[in-house]
Amino acid sequence: MGLFSKDIKTFDDLFVHTLQDIYYAENKIVKSLPKMIEKATSPQLKQGLELHLRETESHVKRLEQVFKMHGAEVKAVTCPAIDGIIKEADELAGDIEDKEVLDAAIAAAAQAVEHYEITRYGTLVAWAKQLGRPDCASVLQQTLDEEHAADQKLTKLAESSLNRKAA
Amino acid sequence: MGLFSKDIKTFDDLFVHTLQDIYYAENKIVKSLPKMIEKATSPQLKQGLELHLRETESHVKRLEQVFKMHGAEVKAVTCPAIDGIIKEADELAGDIEDKEVLDAAIAAAAQAVEHYEITRYGTLVAWAKQLGRPDCASVLQQTLDEEHAADQKLTKLAESSLNRKAA
Repeated sequence: MGLFSKDIKTFDDLFVHTLQDIYYAENKIVKSLPKMIEKATSPQLKQGLELHLRETESHVKRLEQVFKMHGAEVKAVTCPAIDGIIKEADELAGDIEDKEVLDAAIAAAAQAVEHYEITRYGTLVAWAKQLGRPDCASVLQQTLDEEHAADQKLTKLAESSLNRKAA
Repeated sequence: MGLFSKDIKTFDDLFVHTLQDIYYAENKIVKSLPKMIEKATSPQLKQGLELHLRETESHVKRLEQVFKMHGAEVKAVTCPAIDGIIKEADELAGDIEDKEVLDAAIAAAAQAVEHYEITRYGTLVAWAKQLGRPDCASVLQQTLDEEHAADQKLTKLAESSLNRKAA
């Protein structure tokens, strides 16, 4: 979250602020995933991340839809959490030479990103329901389901293939 | 992760590096939780976070045990991810006046911390198994189970009480 948080007076403000936070995060992920895809070697990992990039683009659109449904301006606020998660992924990826070890690290980094999204969307769904906005909750839930599915796919890929190759 | 990642040549190096990353994170959480507890108003939230502070202290000890079991030096490397997650929590908490809105925000921030730990311990358990260290995996799994339980307790508390009061 960040710069504009002095404006948070009500629970509705907190909900909108958290939408702005994850809107920043999703846009940052759209910019960062292509670098991870480029560095990945495993075709399955590349393909999985490419599919998730397409999904992430649709998550940005869904957030814009929720802002509009809720009568709020489409806006991003700096999210130090995703900045830190992605900084860590970039630093690590840049410093591993072995391609199979790098694939295992990239999959783990992508799962750290997923988990940030899972926690924020989980919160947003609960808050939207509490605010009497089941319509917003329903749109946010679609993304939450996709984040869970993406995380589970990465776990399967890591455990069935990437970790074994890296070891 | 961070500063020392140029040393990552093997999958075992990656495992140890990630232990160092989460060791930094757990220590940072031990320092940060008291500030969250102080700011929280709900007695149930305060109590839940205090219990989790005690658990977090035991997670630090367990990591020291795993370092030793694995014959690695007990060491931390800067983890930009947890730094970002906690920076975000601090900024947000400092800028909300209404105590009930703040409680909802603190619970959500604590869940973001939990999810970072869940993803890293999930990865570490899988990697320890792949490296033929079921003994290390078993110790790490205990912490992973506690992180999941802490996250679920926060969800219950938020949905049954905090969000309603904040709304």
